[in-house]
Order: sequence, then structure tokens, then C-alpha cells
Amino acid sequence: MATVTPLNLQQSINTSRIKAEDMFCNSSPCCNDAGFLQKNNSLDEKSRMVGAFKESAKNQMCDNSERFTRAETDFSNLFARDLLPAKNGEEPTIQFLLEVVEILTNYVRKTFDRSTKVLDFHHPHQLLEGMEGFNLELSDQPESLEQILVDCRDTLKYGVRTGHPRFFNQLSSGLDIIGLAGEWLTSTANTNMFTYEIAPVFVLMEQLTLKKMREIIGWPNGDGDALFSPGGAISNMYSVMVARYKYFPEVKTKGMSAAPRLVLFTSEHSHYSIKKAGAVLGFGKENVILLKTDERGRVIPTDLEAKIIDAKQKGYVPLFVNATAGTTVYGAFDPINDIADICEKYNLWLHVDGAWGGGLLMSRKHRHKLSGIERANSVTWNPHKMMGVPLQCSAILVREKGILQGCNSMCAGYLFQPDKQYDVTYDTGDKAIQCGRHVDIFKFWLMWKAKGTVGFEQHIDRCLELSEYLYNKIKNREGYEMVFEGQPQHTNVCFWYIPPSLRSMPHGDERREKLHRVAPKIKAMMMECGTTMVGYQPQGDKVNFFRMVVSNHAVTKSDIDFLIDEIERLGHDL
Amino acid sequence: MATVTPLNLQQSINTSRIKAEDMFCNSSPCCNDAGFLQKNNSLDEKSRMVGAFKESAKNQMCDNSERFTRAETDFSNLFARDLLPAKNGEEPTIQFLLEVVEILTNYVRKTFDRSTKVLDFHHPHQLLEGMEGFNLELSDQPESLEQILVDCRDTLKYGVRTGHPRFFNQLSSGLDIIGLAGEWLTSTANTNMFTYEIAPVFVLMEQLTLKKMREIIGWPNGDGDALFSPGGAISNMYSVMVARYKYFPEVKTKGMSAAPRLVLFTSEHSHYSIKKAGAVLGFGKENVILLKTDERGRVIPTDLEAKIIDAKQKGYVPLFVNATAGTTVYGAFDPINDIADICEKYNLWLHVDGAWGGGLLMSRKHRHKLSGIERANSVTWNPHKMMGVPLQCSAILVREKGILQGCNSMCAGYLFQPDKQYDVTYDTGDKAIQCGRHVDIFKFWLMWKAKGTVGFEQHIDRCLELSEYLYNKIKNREGYEMVFEGQPQHTNVCFWYIPPSLRSMPHGDERREKLHRVAPKIKAMMMECGTTMVGYQPQGDKVNFFRMVVSNHAVTKSDIDFLIDEIERLGHDL
Repeated sequence: MATVTPLNLQQSINTSRIKAEDMFCNSSPCCNDAGFLQKNNSLDEKSRMVGAFKESAKNQMCDNSERFTRAETDFSNLFARDLLPAKNGEEPTIQFLLEVVEILTNYVRKTFDRSTKVLDFHHPHQLLEGMEGFNLELSDQPESLEQILVDCRDTLKYGVRTGHPRFFNQLSSGLDIIGLAGEWLTSTANTNMFTYEIAPVFVLMEQLTLKKMREIIGWPNGDGDALFSPGGAISNMYSVMVARYKYFPEVKTKGMSAAPRLVLFTSEHSHYSIKKAGAVLGFGKENVILLKTDERGRVIPTDLEAKIIDAKQKGYVPLFVNATAGTTVYGAFDPINDIADICEKYNLWLHVDGAWGGGLLMSRKHRHKLSGIERANSVTWNPHKMMGVPLQCSAILVREKGILQGCNSMCAGYLFQPDKQYDVTYDTGDKAIQCGRHVDIFKFWLMWKAKGTVGFEQHIDRCLELSEYLYNKIKNREGYEMVFEGQPQHTNVCFWYIPPSLRSMPHGDERREKLHRVAPKIKAMMMECGTTMVGYQPQGDKVNFFRMVVSNHAVTKSDIDFLIDEIERLGHDL
Repeated sequence: MATVTPLNLQQSINTSRIKAEDMFCNSSPCCNDAGFLQKNNSLDEKSRMVGAFKESAKNQMCDNSERFTRAETDFSNLFARDLLPAKNGEEPTIQFLLEVVEILTNYVRKTFDRSTKVLDFHHPHQLLEGMEGFNLELSDQPESLEQILVDCRDTLKYGVRTGHPRFFNQLSSGLDIIGLAGEWLTSTANTNMFTYEIAPVFVLMEQLTLKKMREIIGWPNGDGDALFSPGGAISNMYSVMVARYKYFPEVKTKGMSAAPRLVLFTSEHSHYSIKKAGAVLGFGKENVILLKTDERGRVIPTDLEAKIIDAKQKGYVPLFVNATAGTTVYGAFDPINDIADICEKYNLWLHVDGAWGGGLLMSRKHRHKLSGIERANSVTWNPHKMMGVPLQCSAILVREKGILQGCNSMCAGYLFQPDKQYDVTYDTGDKAIQCGRHVDIFKFWLMWKAKGTVGFEQHIDRCLELSEYLYNKIKNREGYEMVFEGQPQHTNVCFWYIPPSLRSMPHGDERREKLHRVAPKIKAMMMECGTTMVGYQPQGDKVNFFRMVVSNHAVTKSDIDFLIDEIERLGHDL
């Protein structure tokens, strides 16, 4: 960095956004006379600034910010106590953070580098014993910052690169750089969503983004209500809570004994969080009635109607139906319109669990798969899955305005004071089952700004094309059997790999037992080699099969080819 | 950076932790023969490496990592699509992330600089209208990276500096640099706690840290169970769920109708999340019975016993008692031993909500305030409050091993396969009410490594000394009235500021009404000036008063003095 050109300054002038406070320092009339803006901290360290450019910039712009400069630093004699707010802590703080950033940017680089392993697998006991000095135990005395940096490197080294182009193990994958920057900023801001008072910008970003999501769902004017929650399971739980409050508001005060015996409906292929919500909220999991699906994993609407009638005849009161838009394993989309007709007929709450499939709403080509979603009373939609937003980012969206507040408010006076100087309807905390709530919005908002709606659409379309490529590649390939017939609706491609030794074996229990062990064996070898990761599971009476999914924008056809080659390489001799 | 000394290399040699993989590249025997480690990415950009040191290091160490170099970059023609995984995306990615880091490190610097405002307040409508071009609306088309960087700056500019030494508004405050680095790493790793498979290191760190916390609580050998959850309200909800499961396990399957009419007990001063849990879980909030407190906000044990007897006589079944260790407003510690005696006598679940006060367990001087906590069946403890860990970091700890699993497991086959190659008892997902779970452990673990147990103790002791300083300063000062008598138990100092115009006014409704409006007015002025922030609220029949708390390690006596001066400056003429 021998020469530094004043490019940044030039950029600032080029943009139309030069701001008043950049031109004049400390322009805060209400307080200057009180003299509170006396700087207590030392200015001494500020001499490290990059020379000519910065000085001239400061003279003209008075912007108070600095360009950082790396300085070789001996961290072996520095400790946490030497960092800010310690006296003279600024320089070690910046150098320490830059050293961390170097570790992280190297990690980012390698994540996208296919010559890097996806993981370096070790068993729990190996890591607990301390891999080459990586000691997980906590101690009474502090470690040096040098050791802390080593700990950071080791933590990444023994972890799993979920952004690697060959990591296919989870519905959430990929490492979006804008989203990552958003998360770094979020952690630096370190605030809480419960009040506008301490998160004004984030609260408004959340409000605008959730409104946009409701518009995309198709609710008139984007009206309704919504929150980001700590994941799809909690979002689904909200939907059941709100449904209960809508039909039996007295449960909030008096408990479940004030309601008749309520039942919920969801499919055999739906996410287990609906059943879990039934258990948590006091319905009981046996009162979550599982609906039959067709061979593709989609709810059979006539089965829903039959089970509603049956439940009513037995004296139960049907309350809630969950339709899944994108099941976890098959990626199936329940027929929302048919289910909505039935819900209207029997006056039931319709929830759409679009945790995985909701992203397809962003695609003009694929959103028809969620046709009817605008008829839902509530929707779960996890941008951290198909839209590539870093974990966690899950929304619960509700069509009726005010009902989240009604359902959850407890009016805590110490937090939600009615006599604040701003419009307190912007305080969101009392709508949530949480008190403090993590800032999950910023990374998502920033990604939306950076990609535009069209960018998400391209991402979705591309992932679906890749899974179509996989499907076409293996549907008639020797040694593969598809778990269900026909092109998948989502990026889920479910298949068995049949090793040569099983190909001529007659169908029957022995073959089933052997086949059941194939996917776990291949997966174990994949993990031990570190070459790739893909999920497997049984489903109903079907033995273990692979579930391939694509949500990572780093994936190319060559990675799909690699996965197939790798399965065959590892599975050939089983 | 004209000369670079091989200091880092020297450090590596000095440490005893040079590792095998640093000495030999690509040492993965199981896979080399398959030739999968062919690098697809271009190596061209790697020529930007810092000269002599790096080259010599690479020759000797083969460590594959690079030292980054800032390069002036024109972001106005770059877009998200130009970043990794785009071809040639590495250089713009690194430069973009470094530009973000510059914004963030400047923010960190200013956060600790007392000449910087705590906040730059604007009303919602002002921010929504677009402050000087800061446009919160999302659009269909992408914005340039230059604009994204401006958006990042603006987001921080209009936010609240929760790490500022004069931010006293929330129980969670401060910006710990190690914790911040931990969060940056966590977002870069972008993984999920539900299985060991994709979060091996984090799962083990969580396990070891939670065991350490249980040891500190005083449970024999640190046995028991625990999880990090998305905040204290959810942790408290877990405690009620687990209590219900312990005494009425059939509720999980059959719902609340399988249990008698259950009641929960908690104090008038306790956190509203207990009542909320009652509403959510189907008990009904009127079945959460509020206990009387003494004038310091501590539960009166005889009132608990009387209410238990009364409930039983009415045919209710007492289930659960919450004792608060550190109430939100007064910072009061309920007498746990007395409450534990009653719980034992009547066979009730004892939960200790130590969300705020749990941190005092780290202090030999103050942990006696939680005496008896080892008798609790469950404990909530939020390191993100008194221990200064970045948001979010809340633990629910349970004395009985296996009960979280029993209460919550749904055995989802697609995620928690029993036939994995590793010990699947390390998969934690089925213990949680969530499916995916954010990695909240790493920042905390890293802080513990960096500070040691002693570092947390010093932090706690220091915060309590500062609040004692405040208490002693104002207890007899003209114009102040304490809300309760005697030295506070926690860092909460609750007081009224009485403006001169009210000092000679006779006590009565008029004075009460006027005094009720003083704190909100001062708070509004503080926020508009941006000088400091402190909370206020009414409590019972007491009109609005200030609640001062200290949890930020950047606070000094001068900041306490500043707060008092500022209250008097702003409130003098009210």
C-alpha cells in the first residue's frame, strides 16, 4: 500500500449523497452548550492514519472516519483486558479485529475453493481429547490473544463449510457475501428488536420487508402482521397459537380447559414442528392428526375432509390445518387451493408452512406451485433456506392485523411505556413470545437491496434448474432408483444408489436391509473423506435414501456431477 | 505497509502448536487417489500476496492462507453478482468485506469515544421519509456495492450505540471485542446447532460450557442437561414445559385435558415471560398466581405458602414456582432457600430465573445472593446480560438429565438418523422446541477463554461497585428520592429526580401526576440530544422513576457522574 490514491474521496463527491454531518463536525445544537461532547479518550493513536489522502479528506469532509492500516502486532503478550475500553486499547483492538478478519476472509476464500475439503471429520471423543492442542476446556485464567486467534483458526478448521459448493446436506446452505457483511454489521450494532427506541432502523427495515413479503404472498396491500422468529419451528408454533387465539381467545387467560378438545391437521410428510407445537401448546401430539399423502408426498384433500368429519363426529373441534409448501424430504407442495376450500367450508384456520418452499414465491416461473397461498391465514417463510440468507431468518406472516399483539401482549410497563415521545406502535416486543429478539432482518434487507427482487428470482430459478439437471441425469442411470416418479416440484431429488452387488438381487427383505445400510455407509465415507455431504433418511416404509437439495448459489453442474461420481466411487464395492 | 517483518512466522514457531497440516498440504490419504482435490478456481488473483514474508512462510509452512492487502476499489460499478462465487470474484469479495470492516471498526472506535453521541434520534416517519437519501424501501433491481456500503454506514448512523459508555437503557449493554470477533466468526461459519454432523466444534463447546455453568450453579459434578435458547423468555418457557412434563408427562401426548387444573407461582416483580409462558403453554395467564413482595421487591415466602394452600383448597394443583434472581426493575433476589423449603414440602418444581442475576454466580463476593440455587430444578441464566456477551446468549439449565429430551423429542428421521457413524447422543436438536438453532455459544466460549473465569468475576464486581457509587452519590442528594430503602442487591438503582419546582410541593395527587411526567420528559430530551439513555417505568402504585443499571465494562465513575449531571441539566426547569 505504498501509494494511496484519493479514489474514495472521488467516489464520495461523485455520489449525490454527501451529507450535512460529513461537512461539519459536531453539529448538535441542543447539546453543544452543555459541553458534553468533550472527548475523554486519547487522540494519540490517530497518528496512524494513511497520509495525504486522509488528511486532505478530513480537512474537506470532516468525516471522522479512518482508513485502517495493518501493523504487525505481537499478540502473545496481549490479553482481552488490553482491548477497548482499555486506555490505549484502540490500536490493539483494531489490529486484533483485523487479524480475525484475515482468518475469516481466508476461510471465505477457501469455502469457494473446490480443492478445499467440505469438512475435516473427527469423532466427538477425538475433539474432546484435544486435536493437536486444540483445547475446548474453559479455564480460570485468561489466554493470550495469540491463543485466541489460534482457537479461532482451529474452530473453523474442525467445522463444516456449509457454504462449500459441494455441501448439500441441509436445506440451508451457501455463504452469501452480502448476507455475511450484514451479519457482521448486525453483531457490531449488537441491539435488540423489542423497541424502536434501541433499534429504530432495524424495526423499520423489518416492517417494510415483512410488508413486501405479504404483498408477494398476495394479501391485499400487503396488509396484515408479521415477525421474524428464531426459526421455522417457532414460526409454525406461532401459527397454531394465533389460530387458537382467533377462535378461543379465552385460552390466553383461562388455559386450554376453557376450550373444547381441539384438533390440528397436517400431513405425514410435514415438518415435525407442527406436532411439536401441539405438544408444547397443550393440545397434545395425538391431537395433531396426520393426513395421508399421494406417492409424491402431497396431501390428499379428500382425506383431510374425511378426517375433519370423523373428528367432529367423535366430539373433537377441528381448529387448524397446515398445508406444506415444500416438504422437508420430498419437496412436495400440498394443493393449497383445495385445502383452502375445505378450510372455508369448515371454518378452520389455514396455515401454509412455506419454510422451505416459500422462496419460490420470488420466481414467476415457479410460484404457481404455491397457488392459493393468498387464502392462508398465516404463512411461515424462511429466507434462510431457499433464499440463501444466513441463519437465522424466518418469518411468521399473519393475514389479520393486530392478532399477534392480541395473542401475545402482556403489556410490560418497564419496556413498553405508553408515554414515550415517539409512536409506540413501532415497539414490536409485545407481539412476540420472546422478550429480547435478535436482529435477523438486516442481512436479509441488505441482500434484497444488493440483489433486487430479480436477483432472488434468478437464484431460485437456477437452483431448480440444477436439480432438474440432476434428476434428468440419474432418472434412467444404471444403479439409481428414484424414490418417487416424475420431476420433483422443488430442488429435492430423492433416490437410492444401488451398488452393483445389489442390482441383481431379488426384491425382498434381504435386499431392503442391505439397501437400508448403503446410504449411511456412503455418507460416513463422504464425511471421513470430507469431499461432499448429502442427507439421507428413511420415509414411511421406504428404506434409507439420499435426499439431494440445492439452495447454494455456488453450486454448478460440475458439482452435481461430482456428487454422483463420488457416490459411485464410494458405493461401488458395498 | 512498506516493510513487513516475519513476526507472524516467528510467532508460529514460538508456539508449541505447529500442526501437521501446516507442514504438508493436502494430506488426505483416503481421497488423494481419487483426484478430487483438483482446484477448479483460478489461482491468478493470488499474486497480490504480501511479498517476502509470505513467500518464505508458504515455502516452509504450506499453510495456504494469505495476508490481505487493501486495494482502492471502485464499488460503483460492482454488484453482488460480481462477488464470490462469481468467476474472478475473489478480489472484489475481499475488498468489499474489508471496506465493510473499515465501516465497522470505525463504528467500534466511535462507540467507545465519549465525544460521540449515543444515538441520533429521529421519529419513525422521518426515517421512513428517507433521511438525506437513506432509502429503506426495497426495489426490484440491484443496487451497486457502493450504495450498499452507504446503506451500511447509514444503518449504523441512525442506530443506537448500545456499547457506548453512556448507554444505560437496557440490561444488555456494552460491546465486548472478543465477543464481537466471536460473532463475526459465527456468522462466517453460518451453521446450525441441531446436529454434531454440521456443527461438531460448536456442539462440544456448548456441552462443555453448559456443564461448567451447572458446576457453578452447584449441581453435583455439573450433571444435568441444558441448552442455549433464543432468549430468557424462551428459557423460562422451557422451565415450565419441563416441569409439566416431569409431573404430567401424558400432557405431551394428550394435551392439557389430561392434567388437573395446574397453577404456577411467580412474584409481582418477576419477568412477564412467566405469565406469557402460562398463556402460551395452555395454562392460562390467570393460573399464574402472583406473589407479594416486600418493599425491596423480594418474594415473601409466607405469601407463597399461603397461596399454595389456598390453591389446593380450591382444587387446583400447584406445579411450579419461579424465584427470580435479579428482578428486572429493582434487581431483587428472591430468597431461594426459603422458597426451596416450601417447594420441597409441597413437591413443586423450583425454577430460578437468573436471566439478569445469574451472572453474579461468577463472583465470590456476590454469589451468596443466589444462595440455594443449587436446590433449583431449573435455572435461566443469560450471559448476554450481566456477563456482557453479545446478544443473544441465554441458557436454560435443568438438574435432571434426559428430561429435555423426553419433553421435546419427536424423533424426526430425516435429521436425527440413528445409524450415523458417530455417537448421535451429541445431536442436540431433538431436545429443543426449535428445529434449526442459532450458534449462540461460540462468542461466549471465546470470551471465557480470553477472560478466564476471573475476568468475568472482575467484570461483575466492577459493575456492582459502580452502582454502589451511584447509590451513595444520590441517596442523600438534594432532588433525589430512592424508590426503595437500602443498598440495591444488583446494579439496579431506582430513583426519582425531583425538579426544583416540585420539591416544595405537598405530597398528593397533583405532585404524583407531575412527577409521573418528569422521567419521560427527561428521557425524551436525552434521546433528542443523544447524550445518554436510561430506562424508566412505573411499578405498582409508584409513578415513573428511573432505573439505572450497569452491565457495560466501558462505564466509569465519570459516566455515572455524567448521567446525574445530565438529568439535572435537562430536568432542572421542568
